[in-house]
Amino acid sequence: MNVRTGRKVQHYRTVGFDEAKNAVVLIEQRLLPHEFQLIHTKNFRDTAAAIRDMVVRGAGAIGATAAYGLAQGARAFKGKDLAAFQKHVDEVFTVLKEARPTAVDPVNAMLDVRAQMAAGTTVEEQQLRALHAAHHFADDDVEHCHALGKHGAPLITEGMRVLTHCNAGWLAFVDIGSATAPMYEAQAQGKKFHVFCDETRPRCQGASLTAWELAQQGISHSVIADNAAGHLMQRGEIDLVIVGSDRTLGRTGEVANKIGTYTKAVLAKRHKIPFYVAIPLSTIDWDMRSGFDIPIEERHESEVLGAWGIAQSAKGEGRGTKKGQRTYVRIGNPDSHARNPGFDVTPPDLITGIITPAGIFKPKELWKRRKELGYAEA
Amino acid sequence: MNVRTGRKVQHYRTVGFDEAKNAVVLIEQRLLPHEFQLIHTKNFRDTAAAIRDMVVRGAGAIGATAAYGLAQGARAFKGKDLAAFQKHVDEVFTVLKEARPTAVDPVNAMLDVRAQMAAGTTVEEQQLRALHAAHHFADDDVEHCHALGKHGAPLITEGMRVLTHCNAGWLAFVDIGSATAPMYEAQAQGKKFHVFCDETRPRCQGASLTAWELAQQGISHSVIADNAAGHLMQRGEIDLVIVGSDRTLGRTGEVANKIGTYTKAVLAKRHKIPFYVAIPLSTIDWDMRSGFDIPIEERHESEVLGAWGIAQSAKGEGRGTKKGQRTYVRIGNPDSHARNPGFDVTPPDLITGIITPAGIFKPKELWKRRKELGYAEA
Repeated sequence: MNVRTGRKVQHYRTVGFDEAKNAVVLIEQRLLPHEFQLIHTKNFRDTAAAIRDMVVRGAGAIGATAAYGLAQGARAFKGKDLAAFQKHVDEVFTVLKEARPTAVDPVNAMLDVRAQMAAGTTVEEQQLRALHAAHHFADDDVEHCHALGKHGAPLITEGMRVLTHCNAGWLAFVDIGSATAPMYEAQAQGKKFHVFCDETRPRCQGASLTAWELAQQGISHSVIADNAAGHLMQRGEIDLVIVGSDRTLGRTGEVANKIGTYTKAVLAKRHKIPFYVAIPLSTIDWDMRSGFDIPIEERHESEVLGAWGIAQSAKGEGRGTKKGQRTYVRIGNPDSHARNPGFDVTPPDLITGIITPAGIFKPKELWKRRKELGYAEA
Repeated sequence: MNVRTGRKVQHYRTVGFDEAKNAVVLIEQRLLPHEFQLIHTKNFRDTAAAIRDMVVRGAGAIGATAAYGLAQGARAFKGKDLAAFQKHVDEVFTVLKEARPTAVDPVNAMLDVRAQMAAGTTVEEQQLRALHAAHHFADDDVEHCHALGKHGAPLITEGMRVLTHCNAGWLAFVDIGSATAPMYEAQAQGKKFHVFCDETRPRCQGASLTAWELAQQGISHSVIADNAAGHLMQRGEIDLVIVGSDRTLGRTGEVANKIGTYTKAVLAKRHKIPFYVAIPLSTIDWDMRSGFDIPIEERHESEVLGAWGIAQSAKGEGRGTKKGQRTYVRIGNPDSHARNPGFDVTPPDLITGIITPAGIFKPKELWKRRKELGYAEA
């Protein structure tokens, strides 16, 4: 999507590839929203480090990064010995996989690339096929988000006030995003609307990443504390909620997403405000039988007891620290501890619809219509 | 309540008076939770500045501060000329009132002190009566909170997990607090329980002040992001909610309190968790006829777009800035704006009961039983 630097507006993907340099090109997301910087990874180990260290995050984005990382590693191999090449690719695969051991997207993406490579009979052919497959994977991600946006855009009508939580934006994918896709498509269709971005404590992806995305795109928006949405709904200032999902259970219609999503769904239900979840099909889990089985990661308490930002005066001028230096401040009582569950589970009775690249579904319909949704019978 | 410094535990009130120095003694709340410091105001103007600059906050606490400030001002008068004394006291009254122009507690407290002074026939007598009345006002505040605690404590049973929002603790009153009063009383009765403190963005009074209070008192507690309570309720980890109130409508049972309170009430209702509001009788508004008439202050957006804390490494060591230096960090996208409503209104259908010094009432009972609650017929 768009990035504004001064008067210039340029189009970027979250993940790209530089063939000449054999480098994966990533937006350095840890510097956002305060600084926009591209990094070129030097080799596949460097790419793995970028995944591990959260230079890039979001299911779609790390999937594509791993796909390109595998191609990058394969292309770096010198020689014609196919057996040695396979051994090398195995190592690349393992290193990239271990960069984020609990994520399924990098593994699925790399399996896809390897399957495409297999038809090549020489090292060179396999190398060519690897890059081709990685490009294909990234393009597919964009295409899916685009289709999702087309299906979701009609939900946003002129003048609407839309709430979103966390960042399910283009920074979490290769481009366009999931929860943001209907917004970008509605904007392209010429509609005017306003987006409320939940701050999304403790990591504040809404205040930083989603607000940054919307600002770059020129979409009217306000950041709100996670505490404020209930009040705004009560006063009739929110018309629609769209969020993303980390895992959606195909059998039950339950949705796991960033902590706080469930609360917004409960509030939306009380106020009869439509609550939609936007997902690429790859995040549907067809196996799990209950949302209570979804492991909820308990993250480090320092996230809750403090916050990261750029030190400055409350009025905006830099102060005390080097301009642009990220600083952690302790907010909470020094002797106190925190609980920090990273995700929660929203049950299907609170979800108006699930927006997918294949159309909008009631959460309870997913299983019935699983063939349309790419479910492969075992 | 208790404050621990090293191995010592000492008892303090939020607001006190030093007769020898003719000084109001306040806990410097802007330094909490990182530093505990008492300040002695030099004169009534200094006391007004402490109210204005948020050294002291909370309805009960600023009421008592104004009462003591009036006595302090009266006592500073030299001479026996009663007319000149009255004029001086008028000025003291005005200066203290204007320190927080929208608050009703300082005005009510000072009217109370002035009424007591009036029976004195000399300057000296009125000065004595002023201090006596201020002490009386402060003691009453403590007694009310104590009575509230006695009524509320039976709600907390052994092993319970209690959620609270913001700070309706002793720091907001002269001592004991409102939402915390049942907790302190239950502790005194030997019960063990756990308190979840909502962080309470954007000003984080839960993570800083309430967590500090509970730590000083040795009550088991955890800070959570405002986003996390819904998940904890869903997983059966919260048994009871107790919050405070800035204004409770006697005619409707609606409760205005810190932004985010309404959300917790909606969640509690869904999970059939008892939701109580603890209030001193002084916060009941007997005139207003609808919660929608309560003006909701829109605070500065910098509160939402950033946070205040002590700069340090995420692991806890001081870093980059002087130890103890409060720092503002910008979290949100630099080009984005925020909405920042400070309060919300919870309707009576979500409130299990209102805990007062006169007992526990259903919200809809307040008006019917207004005489027990000190309503003065016009």
